Amino acid sequence: MASEKPNIGDLVRLYLTDGTVLEGIVMPLTEFSGSDIIVMKLKNGYNIGVSRERVVKVEVIQREAAEIGKVPPPARTEIEGRGEKNITLISTGGTIASKVEYETGAVRPAITASELVEMVPDLRGIAKRLRVVELMRVLSEDMRPTDWAKIAEEILAEIRSGADAVVVAHGTDTMGYTAAAIAFALQELPIPVAFVGSQRSSDRPSTDAVFNLKAATATSLKAPFGESVVVMHGTPSDTYALAHRGVRVRKMHSSRRDAFQSINTRPLAKLSAPDFEIELLTDDYIPRNNDGPSPSIGFDERVALLYTYPGMRCEIIEYIAQEGAKGIVLAGTGLGHIPSYCIPSVKRAVDSGIFIGVTTQTLFGRVNLNVYSNGRRLIKAGAVPLADMLPETAYVKLSWALANFSRERVTEVMLANVVGEISLRHEEDVYPRWYHG
Amino acid sequence: MASEKPNIGDLVRLYLTDGTVLEGIVMPLTEFSGSDIIVMKLKNGYNIGVSRERVVKVEVIQREAAEIGKVPPPARTEIEGRGEKNITLISTGGTIASKVEYETGAVRPAITASELVEMVPDLRGIAKRLRVVELMRVLSEDMRPTDWAKIAEEILAEIRSGADAVVVAHGTDTMGYTAAAIAFALQELPIPVAFVGSQRSSDRPSTDAVFNLKAATATSLKAPFGESVVVMHGTPSDTYALAHRGVRVRKMHSSRRDAFQSINTRPLAKLSAPDFEIELLTDDYIPRNNDGPSPSIGFDERVALLYTYPGMRCEIIEYIAQEGAKGIVLAGTGLGHIPSYCIPSVKRAVDSGIFIGVTTQTLFGRVNLNVYSNGRRLIKAGAVPLADMLPETAYVKLSWALANFSRERVTEVMLANVVGEISLRHEEDVYPRWYHG
Repeated sequence: MASEKPNIGDLVRLYLTDGTVLEGIVMPLTEFSGSDIIVMKLKNGYNIGVSRERVVKVEVIQREAAEIGKVPPPARTEIEGRGEKNITLISTGGTIASKVEYETGAVRPAITASELVEMVPDLRGIAKRLRVVELMRVLSEDMRPTDWAKIAEEILAEIRSGADAVVVAHGTDTMGYTAAAIAFALQELPIPVAFVGSQRSSDRPSTDAVFNLKAATATSLKAPFGESVVVMHGTPSDTYALAHRGVRVRKMHSSRRDAFQSINTRPLAKLSAPDFEIELLTDDYIPRNNDGPSPSIGFDERVALLYTYPGMRCEIIEYIAQEGAKGIVLAGTGLGHIPSYCIPSVKRAVDSGIFIGVTTQTLFGRVNLNVYSNGRRLIKAGAVPLADMLPETAYVKLSWALANFSRERVTEVMLANVVGEISLRHEEDVYPRWYHG
Repeated sequence: MASEKPNIGDLVRLYLTDGTVLEGIVMPLTEFSGSDIIVMKLKNGYNIGVSRERVVKVEVIQREAAEIGKVPPPARTEIEGRGEKNITLISTGGTIASKVEYETGAVRPAITASELVEMVPDLRGIAKRLRVVELMRVLSEDMRPTDWAKIAEEILAEIRSGADAVVVAHGTDTMGYTAAAIAFALQELPIPVAFVGSQRSSDRPSTDAVFNLKAATATSLKAPFGESVVVMHGTPSDTYALAHRGVRVRKMHSSRRDAFQSINTRPLAKLSAPDFEIELLTDDYIPRNNDGPSPSIGFDERVALLYTYPGMRCEIIEYIAQEGAKGIVLAGTGLGHIPSYCIPSVKRAVDSGIFIGVTTQTLFGRVNLNVYSNGRRLIKAGAVPLADMLPETAYVKLSWALANFSRERVTEVMLANVVGEISLRHEEDVYPRWYHG
């Protein structure tokens, strides 16, 4: 690269090796070393990343043509690679797209999706077209069912426009909920949709973002399953990543890299460093469906999730019901019990048309309301025991079912195994080995 | 034993080998084989169990003196043993004290505490005086903070009257909550208080009740710690039991025998079959205090526990606050985040004098609200991050703190390590080994 040194915000003209001339505003890059891309916002509003090695000459047309603080974040950036695959990375926010506020030391969402790509330079060797969509900047605790729908629409559009891989960067706190939502909204996927996050801010030396991004991309490109999965560290070190079924994964630690774990089932696959080849851990996966996806996007927000506890006031159930809820998922104790003095409140809610599903706060195992008389009373009141479904997955599924099926069909749908979220009979008991000294 | 064969409900006179003569009504025994006790209700209302081998002669004074269906369940039974120890078993209900309703196949609370003792005949070799208190018949999902107080009062009375061991039989669903409640209510214990339950009904061949009762009794008699603990199977088979600190244990499976596991810490001790010798797994225990216990019994019911989720309606927080709650424990996501649009509701609740504590629904790990800006906003709103305390333990502790301390001191108490329920700095990271194929 020769000629005038462009600054961020300058309007420039780039002359490329193949004769192309591009005109646009130079966009910010990150502090990551080794970056050899120039990202420009073109006049059509599109952003494009160009390898510096392809630039013959830079001509600065106007210095400080844009105040960078006022330049809107790039919505879509396309970077050309040297490979064969169309790869899409959708950024939604979260730690993986965050940087530290140096004034306070706190982390806020800030790094753009294109900056994420710089972290994994290998991608440009695999990708023919690397499309980066900065869809939203939402910390995962702030995700709402309407955001799940937006993410589903974007994934659907990318798959329909020929993506060979779709990776979704997401905050880890509620990534399991969103991965489950996509599993229900986009069934019969032709490719795996890989959710990925990081437990350490992307601009910290200890970040797990790069490792996880590599593993997630490999999963979406190569895995034989057509499922919405979460791909994260399998151990605290960079030994292997795991691909977990989105409807079966739960964040089980507040800070460890291997926080995400499959509950009541095996992870789908293991991806070992440094090559991230796929090692399947089960045959029980949903294969890719080249005719897919089959979309049913929509989530009803009038749903609540309630973990029960001794001394719970049943008025909470009555309140949620009166405030217009269409469904409640209870996470009861043990086999799915709730305080028996709350059963009349459940009955009133059910009688008024509200769906009440029962899961267990033990997380592992399955509910069974036929063992004890209080359980039988709960069933008689109209509550529906949801086998071995995670409480969080049941909440997402109920939101989806109420938006996509008539009330009459909701019970049937909640009890059906739609995308591997529920086993109706007892199969392998996958329970961790606990520390017993 | 000679003479007339007594039936249940008969008023009889027993002549014992040592010359004692007892008069009372014969009480029901169970279907357990090998029973060689006669339980009689004496005129003073007390029940007593007598070894048949000590009975020289039985004289039936009146056949069917009591309709057994109308005989109130024994409140206290004392059985003399051949050993040295004063052992108390307090029965509260639950599966361990349940039997199957043959007409429906469901399980209901029914077996009396004295029947439990028959299941562990060894006890009579150890015990000088085996006192069985049938305190209540409450399924554990129906336990309330007022029940925790009753149980605490009973344990205190037994310890003060010289018990060398106190075992509490409890339903498993909420046994962790009650064990935590006792830990706060009765500190500086001179003996371990061992909570025990079973995952299989006591009259089923597969019951784990006998194994667990033996291990719990051994723990309370022999362990060096003065703590409220849960003693249950450590594996699915009868290999060893574990004694878990009550404030750190959680029921993690709906049906497995090894459902109870310590979270964020090691179990205190392992007790291997068949002798149930104590093997300590940590030095970090609270030793027996012969000057104890130090009681502060009392629980405020105006407390709620709320697991957050994406799309949660903040009005639930407002509702709980308006209905007179004095405290709320939130189980947020990840490091303790809640939807940021709910932070104003938290602030209003705090401003009105309600204590709001923050834990994490990941269960493992600790909250840290200083990492992300939303967390810092939550702290600014007045929420108190509760380190690595389990959500359920924080709920119990808050109920206890509000009943025993002025509102001004509650924050300080919630943040203090009272009985090992919280580690304020990061120590050993005890995380299970998950199944990764």
